[in-house]
Amino acid sequence: MLVIGIGAGNPDHLTLQAIKAMRRADVVFLVEKRRATRPLEDLRRQMLAEHATQEPRVVTIEDPDRERTPADYRATVTIWRAERARRWGAAIDAHLRDGETGAFLVWGDPAFYDSTLDVLDDLALADLAIEVVPGISSPQALAAAHGIALNRLGGAIELTPGRRYADRVPDDVDDAVVLLDTREAWRRAPDDVDVYWGAYLGTPDELLISGPVRDVEEDISLARAGAREKHGWMFDTYLLRRRQPG
Amino acid sequence: MLVIGIGAGNPDHLTLQAIKAMRRADVVFLVEKRRATRPLEDLRRQMLAEHATQEPRVVTIEDPDRERTPADYRATVTIWRAERARRWGAAIDAHLRDGETGAFLVWGDPAFYDSTLDVLDDLALADLAIEVVPGISSPQALAAAHGIALNRLGGAIELTPGRRYADRVPDDVDDAVVLLDTREAWRRAPDDVDVYWGAYLGTPDELLISGPVRDVEEDISLARAGAREKHGWMFDTYLLRRRQPG
Repeated sequence: MLVIGIGAGNPDHLTLQAIKAMRRADVVFLVEKRRATRPLEDLRRQMLAEHATQEPRVVTIEDPDRERTPADYRATVTIWRAERARRWGAAIDAHLRDGETGAFLVWGDPAFYDSTLDVLDDLALADLAIEVVPGISSPQALAAAHGIALNRLGGAIELTPGRRYADRVPDDVDDAVVLLDTREAWRRAPDDVDVYWGAYLGTPDELLISGPVRDVEEDISLARAGAREKHGWMFDTYLLRRRQPG
Repeated sequence: MLVIGIGAGNPDHLTLQAIKAMRRADVVFLVEKRRATRPLEDLRRQMLAEHATQEPRVVTIEDPDRERTPADYRATVTIWRAERARRWGAAIDAHLRDGETGAFLVWGDPAFYDSTLDVLDDLALADLAIEVVPGISSPQALAAAHGIALNRLGGAIELTPGRRYADRVPDDVDDAVVLLDTREAWRRAPDDVDVYWGAYLGTPDELLISGPVRDVEEDISLARAGAREKHGWMFDTYLLRRRQPG
């Protein structure tokens, strides 16, 4: 089973390794999320059509719905993952024959805040070897779009979900990249922080805002709301950088 | 000026975006480091020969030597960077004509622990627009090789130089990726840590070791020493993962 990172949204983020892996797949499993993200699903099919040579069979797996801001985050995710594993397992059983190669196409990199490897792990498909192909992730597309490095001399970078940052602003890391933020975690950032924000990174709809966090926090909030209204979905990430490294 | 991430050592890490960027370059600047890393320089030339269509002019810049474990890290790096900037500036002045596009090819991703953007910043080439192309970095190649995600559910990932980890083991991050380690920082990791180590990631010489850190720390030390002897240079990275997320 191939788990292929396909980049942050720009079809040219594809690596040669990802293209070669697509070409080895007999069956490609496409996990489809809420209807609003259909343009993303279409883009994935286009990438496949453009690069796969032998026309793999495409199997669609519908992702179970999930509450976006549940009261008990871990419990909700656990139940959701069990249902997800059930659906994936059924699809693999039904469509992948002995000796065939399957593939999942994953936005970004399977190593960064993606649950595909966890779900396959839960399935414990003992007779299925898993091979991972890394892909360009959204923090990398963010840094490239702003023309900056994520680290500073000798310093650390923390990648952190919005939920975690909002609960606990790290006091010993000067550069934090926030992902999967549903609660405007940047509002918790200290005053001496600059923010580099981006949405739809690497796509024609890319939005970028940067500046001192207290100066631009309303702009980011408005940009997110406007984008969500326009596209029906929104995917963003941002770097919070202390102006004075500690 | 294009700053192009070319991946962690596997020529197939190249993205379509990186290949297209190479093809736009009139002049490619190759920074050559110590003689021991010559195989890496050769690989970069091969990538260029294979993918560039219009045969850009190639200009070699010799990197100044740098003490690897200096007493005063920041001061040494500052002096080294000034000399580096001088050499790069001279090379750009001499070889890049008005209206032409230059390119630097960077191992990994220009956003992760690479100084190319800093040096170009120091040069303050006001009339030169900088465009960054992200690339697969060694932490991503590490995760793919071990078939793991770098984060765990709801958790943060810290990317940190070995020097920093050795000085200050983070107590609130359960997953730390250590880069540029010259002092066996894993020896400072607590007993409840698993290590996932890799060297020459994505290349035919790839080495992987994983297990409880106290069980494998000597193996890693020996593998590094053996590899350095065999190849004359060594590039590794590793994940330190607490078994019990806090």
